[in-house]
Amino acid sequence: MDHSFKGKDIISIKDFTREEIEHVLDAAETMEPILSSGSEMLGGMVLATLFFEPSTRTRLSFESAMLRLGGAVIGFAEPKTSSVEKGETIADTVRVVENYADIIVMRHSLEGAARLAAEFSSVPVVNAGTGAEEHPTQAMLDMLTIRKELGRIDGLNIGLIGDLRYGRTVHSLAYGLSLFDVKLFFVSPEVLKMRQEVVEDVRRRVQVNETGQLESVLPVLDVLYVTRIQKERFADPAEYAKVRGVYRITRETTKSMKEEAIIMHPLPRVDEISADVDETRHARYFQQARYGLLLRMALLALVLGAID
Amino acid sequence: MDHSFKGKDIISIKDFTREEIEHVLDAAETMEPILSSGSEMLGGMVLATLFFEPSTRTRLSFESAMLRLGGAVIGFAEPKTSSVEKGETIADTVRVVENYADIIVMRHSLEGAARLAAEFSSVPVVNAGTGAEEHPTQAMLDMLTIRKELGRIDGLNIGLIGDLRYGRTVHSLAYGLSLFDVKLFFVSPEVLKMRQEVVEDVRRRVQVNETGQLESVLPVLDVLYVTRIQKERFADPAEYAKVRGVYRITRETTKSMKEEAIIMHPLPRVDEISADVDETRHARYFQQARYGLLLRMALLALVLGAID
Amino acid sequence: MDHSFKGKDIISIKDFTREEIEHVLDAAETMEPILSSGSEMLGGMVLATLFFEPSTRTRLSFESAMLRLGGAVIGFAEPKTSSVEKGETIADTVRVVENYADIIVMRHSLEGAARLAAEFSSVPVVNAGTGAEEHPTQAMLDMLTIRKELGRIDGLNIGLIGDLRYGRTVHSLAYGLSLFDVKLFFVSPEVLKMRQEVVEDVRRRVQVNETGQLESVLPVLDVLYVTRIQKERFADPAEYAKVRGVYRITRETTKSMKEEAIIMHPLPRVDEISADVDETRHARYFQQARYGLLLRMALLALVLGAID
Repeated sequence: MDHSFKGKDIISIKDFTREEIEHVLDAAETMEPILSSGSEMLGGMVLATLFFEPSTRTRLSFESAMLRLGGAVIGFAEPKTSSVEKGETIADTVRVVENYADIIVMRHSLEGAARLAAEFSSVPVVNAGTGAEEHPTQAMLDMLTIRKELGRIDGLNIGLIGDLRYGRTVHSLAYGLSLFDVKLFFVSPEVLKMRQEVVEDVRRRVQVNETGQLESVLPVLDVLYVTRIQKERFADPAEYAKVRGVYRITRETTKSMKEEAIIMHPLPRVDEISADVDETRHARYFQQARYGLLLRMALLALVLGAID
Repeated sequence: MDHSFKGKDIISIKDFTREEIEHVLDAAETMEPILSSGSEMLGGMVLATLFFEPSTRTRLSFESAMLRLGGAVIGFAEPKTSSVEKGETIADTVRVVENYADIIVMRHSLEGAARLAAEFSSVPVVNAGTGAEEHPTQAMLDMLTIRKELGRIDGLNIGLIGDLRYGRTVHSLAYGLSLFDVKLFFVSPEVLKMRQEVVEDVRRRVQVNETGQLESVLPVLDVLYVTRIQKERFADPAEYAKVRGVYRITRETTKSMKEEAIIMHPLPRVDEISADVDETRHARYFQQARYGLLLRMALLALVLGAID
Repeated sequence: MDHSFKGKDIISIKDFTREEIEHVLDAAETMEPILSSGSEMLGGMVLATLFFEPSTRTRLSFESAMLRLGGAVIGFAEPKTSSVEKGETIADTVRVVENYADIIVMRHSLEGAARLAAEFSSVPVVNAGTGAEEHPTQAMLDMLTIRKELGRIDGLNIGLIGDLRYGRTVHSLAYGLSLFDVKLFFVSPEVLKMRQEVVEDVRRRVQVNETGQLESVLPVLDVLYVTRIQKERFADPAEYAKVRGVYRITRETTKSMKEEAIIMHPLPRVDEISADVDETRHARYFQQARYGLLLRMALLALVLGAID
């Protein structure tokens, strides 16, 4: 079987089959020993990180992944330091930067921006988050976390909780998980319900349960995937105030959970998960960062042809 | 012949003879195979990029050049993250940074800033653009582009088009080209005419034709070097509106051009060149980015003494 | 004797004994040949620089130190490009970044921030300046400068001059020097006097002389450690105006100094030391930057276990 990731753009989780995703997760597991031993697998290669929107973890995660494999990094962390300020199009930026780098990782506030970049770029483009649309590498690292921490993805009851409307992470993750044999629970306030097209698409493959009540589904969930309700998404502060604390997970909450259930969060969190949960057996949100590094090492190595 | 670039500052194109420029262009051509093979030529060396004015392509180009040759990079991409905010002089900044790096690449909004830095620095300083004055490495990469794409510089009719008053790129390029056997055409609106001291200086060596009409010279040009008319240079928006679209190059425009003529642009462009020109046989502005990388690899290697 | 720096956090100068500081200074001296020969001592390792407050010299100094030893660097230079903007706590940021890096260097405007980070981080944390509180690596490099330039620290008369109230550098330095056999002179306007708890603590070990008159102590000092009076510390501009020029060091001032006395400054300076002092035999403030590089190379190598 030829997965041929070499030279491939990573734009949407929808571009991948279950087999391809599992291949990436397998590759990520092989990266673990390299964290201590080091590697020169991508020696001489250059990654460009074009972050038109600020980010800490995603940018640093990709940069660390590239450096751990012996590669080098150029890039910018905010548009003000770039030619975008002078009115340049994405297409032009990409056609310049492709000369400086072997692979481009890009975050942008506009949906479709990474796809557009990939069309113009002669080097592979990896989508590191576009608007409220997609964040495919986050979805993959989340699936890796589930598989490693619970031993499998098939057969699990997985709850996505919080802002399902604007959270790009949950869009990609719902699509990705629907390729497995799971039951999905979308838990959100009415105004932040999962986009209808995502629900319809996912429902074609797996059972989906939409609810506003976390308590009602809490006892059956194997995975609680909690997201931040983003203040900046609300025009009306009163609307935000109404929903912000609605699914706050505390140590008390965890008592209604299955013994083995895990709590995940793409981070940063504000107060959706209280600090007293951090030390419980359920918390996995800091481990996600580590899996993210492994996943991105694997993706870079695959796309740049250093591994198959 | 000893060109002795080792340890030399690269401040103004006026500091170089034709022979020296040709030596740099020759060196740039030898860098081409390294793009695929890699090199550790500058292993262990550190470049500091001090960008007091934002930039994408120039900064990333220098950084990629350094990394491709095995070196490392430190620096800042905007003054707000630097001690300049605290009132430090350029002389002091440079006398600190020279301890951290083997070479300094600097962009600044003030004319003369790079020259000043070089006076105080014990390590070589490369000017990556100062005010509206000079951008010598851009001029060199432009000359490399012409030589590679048209096989020679001598004997060509070269038109510099757009904002010739404030565009630092065209100032350096006009000087550099005047060392060759060329005819120069300066095409601009009256308010954006080439600075008188540049015209006088260049005229001492080559024939210069100043005009406001692009159409009149279009059929004789071998190179159209188009520049962006920068909004930020105009105090009066009405003045800007009057001139901004005056030399817009479209696919239609190219019909009056010589078959083999090429169109260049230092980028970023806004709308001086319409997107339908990109696919024509004339467009070379994205190739310039690649020649820029080669040129900067060569300059770093020469100045740091890795090649002669 | 086991100094066991491996894995140790560097948070406050108060955490170190005289022997430990001398061990770091000794290690810094062994780094000198590496500046020219290069080293791969930290090859494969990654440093994260988390600068929640802007800085040039400290950030670039740490980054250059890491690169000179063969390591790599990730990080951010200002909070706007980080998740902090989204309301993340330091504890969360650190628990994510520890997955990406082998060591964290952090600057923050809040006192206690580095200590807090170290409590949550599984990798070592180095304090690169916290509020007006501490800047331990600056204190160490200052001590290295004194020891190298004057041959010893014991027996010297050392004056700390300027803003002793808000300057974190002088707090750490006063503590560090008090472990040696020195006499300290705190010279400042009344409103910028050294914090009382520092004076009391330091006085337990060494003789301290507090004064507002520089002239009265100038002839006995071996070291003048001059600091910038920071405008941003004054609510009332009139208060600032009153004290800003009060200890301006000029070539004239140096005539009252001991022949061998040296002038230091943590930089950036504004006008506390006039430019005509730069060429005198007393000036050492640019050499401090070089010692800072050596000191930070040593600290990184010690904490990461590359040397003992």
